[in-house]
Amino acid sequence: MNEFELIGRYFKRPAPSALLGVGDDAAIVRPTPGHDLHMSVDMLVEGRHFFADVAPRALGHKALAVNLSDLAAMGARPRWALLSLALPKADEAWVAEFAAGFLALADAHGVELIGGDTTCGPLTLSVTILGEAPAGQALRRAAAKAGDDIWVSGELGLGALSVRQRLGWLNVNDAELLAAARYKLEYPEPRLALGAALLPLAHAAADVSDGLMADLGHILDESAVAAEVWADALPSHPALEARRGEFLACLAAGGDDYELVFTATPAKRAAIEAAAAARGCRVSRIGRIVAGKGARLLDSAGVEIKLDKDGYDHFG
Amino acid sequence: MNEFELIGRYFKRPAPSALLGVGDDAAIVRPTPGHDLHMSVDMLVEGRHFFADVAPRALGHKALAVNLSDLAAMGARPRWALLSLALPKADEAWVAEFAAGFLALADAHGVELIGGDTTCGPLTLSVTILGEAPAGQALRRAAAKAGDDIWVSGELGLGALSVRQRLGWLNVNDAELLAAARYKLEYPEPRLALGAALLPLAHAAADVSDGLMADLGHILDESAVAAEVWADALPSHPALEARRGEFLACLAAGGDDYELVFTATPAKRAAIEAAAAARGCRVSRIGRIVAGKGARLLDSAGVEIKLDKDGYDHFG
Repeated sequence: MNEFELIGRYFKRPAPSALLGVGDDAAIVRPTPGHDLHMSVDMLVEGRHFFADVAPRALGHKALAVNLSDLAAMGARPRWALLSLALPKADEAWVAEFAAGFLALADAHGVELIGGDTTCGPLTLSVTILGEAPAGQALRRAAAKAGDDIWVSGELGLGALSVRQRLGWLNVNDAELLAAARYKLEYPEPRLALGAALLPLAHAAADVSDGLMADLGHILDESAVAAEVWADALPSHPALEARRGEFLACLAAGGDDYELVFTATPAKRAAIEAAAAARGCRVSRIGRIVAGKGARLLDSAGVEIKLDKDGYDHFG
Repeated sequence: MNEFELIGRYFKRPAPSALLGVGDDAAIVRPTPGHDLHMSVDMLVEGRHFFADVAPRALGHKALAVNLSDLAAMGARPRWALLSLALPKADEAWVAEFAAGFLALADAHGVELIGGDTTCGPLTLSVTILGEAPAGQALRRAAAKAGDDIWVSGELGLGALSVRQRLGWLNVNDAELLAAARYKLEYPEPRLALGAALLPLAHAAADVSDGLMADLGHILDESAVAAEVWADALPSHPALEARRGEFLACLAAGGDDYELVFTATPAKRAAIEAAAAARGCRVSRIGRIVAGKGARLLDSAGVEIKLDKDGYDHFG
């Protein structure tokens, strides 16, 4: 067993739901009868998706969180994860911290790590997540209907604010706000409980990873509808309220939010607010689905606001 | 949509068995009732797992083949794959060739690519493979029993010979042999049909990726048994027969074979040979499982042969 295989042992945990966990050619699980299997993969590369000096515990959390967020956007319950990890060197302290962050979030959501691969290479992570939902039930991007409300969970813009401050594009002098923003960037909380609760309530959903307008745009494209989004309704941190105009690009198109954007018939407003409140999750109604094509961001007078970019582009 | 997302389109194919394929937050499939789900992930890094100048079509084949080989070793039928791909630049010609190699092998085995992620970064691949087998049936490493025969499929040593020639560790002057070796290295054929046929016949199985003695060692450790392996019985290419001694390290411990090593009771000899013959696959009986610990490689006089390394170590 080489050093990297030894390091893989940091991730070896009991997986009571698995028939066979880490240590054979493949892991074996028994899917729940009457359920569909939902799965997604995300790859994170140093310098593209995270700063080189990110704390390994935060990186472990985020690597899993961004995948769980995809399942939240489907309304699926996460079950199993596989982790591929390329590391420049076999740094045991780093791996211990990374594993602690990853596994703490996994435990919090009942996710079992049942497979993986650890190797030597430029720091790169790839997490595969598998979840389940009752057969035929899912929050698909293609399900939005004209007349739907558009909702978003939590608060927007903080992750993007943190990235842009770090890159020197912004100059924010509010230490408390910056700390909150950095925490939101590094420890996003996937909205799994909300997503599952929305299965019978919402039509379409997506998670906000590339920026609200971009991710809403995917829903619109897949559903062949358009949207009006009310800039004043975009939820954010109290410290940003007085400076909404300045930070509108972060709010509407910043990315790294890992909130849910979803659509639902107006008849479900009260039920959605109750479901969110029961899960301690803020939800805000931010616009409506209309016939047509594309998303328009509107000011309080109903005039369209044009942003330079409509989403965060990792390669832009 | 950025260049990398556009390139992701090369992998977008109809996935008739999926309820939802590429293009939402997650893919959705419906597992076959009465079956267990088998899954594995492998990460390949340039310069560690493949040469930087490998043809992209060969790399696409191999990235999937090494994963399929894991399922073959479980006796599972492959169903779905997810691909994470980090590329230094958005080279469309390269991606077209890579996708062609990957998808040709996928098509040959009825595998549907239902998810993935393409991003910018040092060339790194991670493939997640999912397969199914009837509930409770699997070729586990932990199932070998004292008295079992040890078998291996196909021929050993050619992949390792190609790597070692390329690295300058060997000096082979047989162009035909070198061509065969390189082909075996770059286009390994996962032994899926054989693996599935072995489900009712074999006890334990593993795929030979790190070298016969190392991978057999995993079976022994998990099964708490020992093995005698007969050096003269290790199957190889006809051109190597006259030089077995010289190439014994490649045969017994070379790696990159992607053959199956498996154990079975002697009562199944005829059935195993018939099952392999029906699938056009050579199988060779190379030793036996005994009580104890560890694997011993024996010469024709029964004297133990000690190799410098008992397996190929990517970081050795």
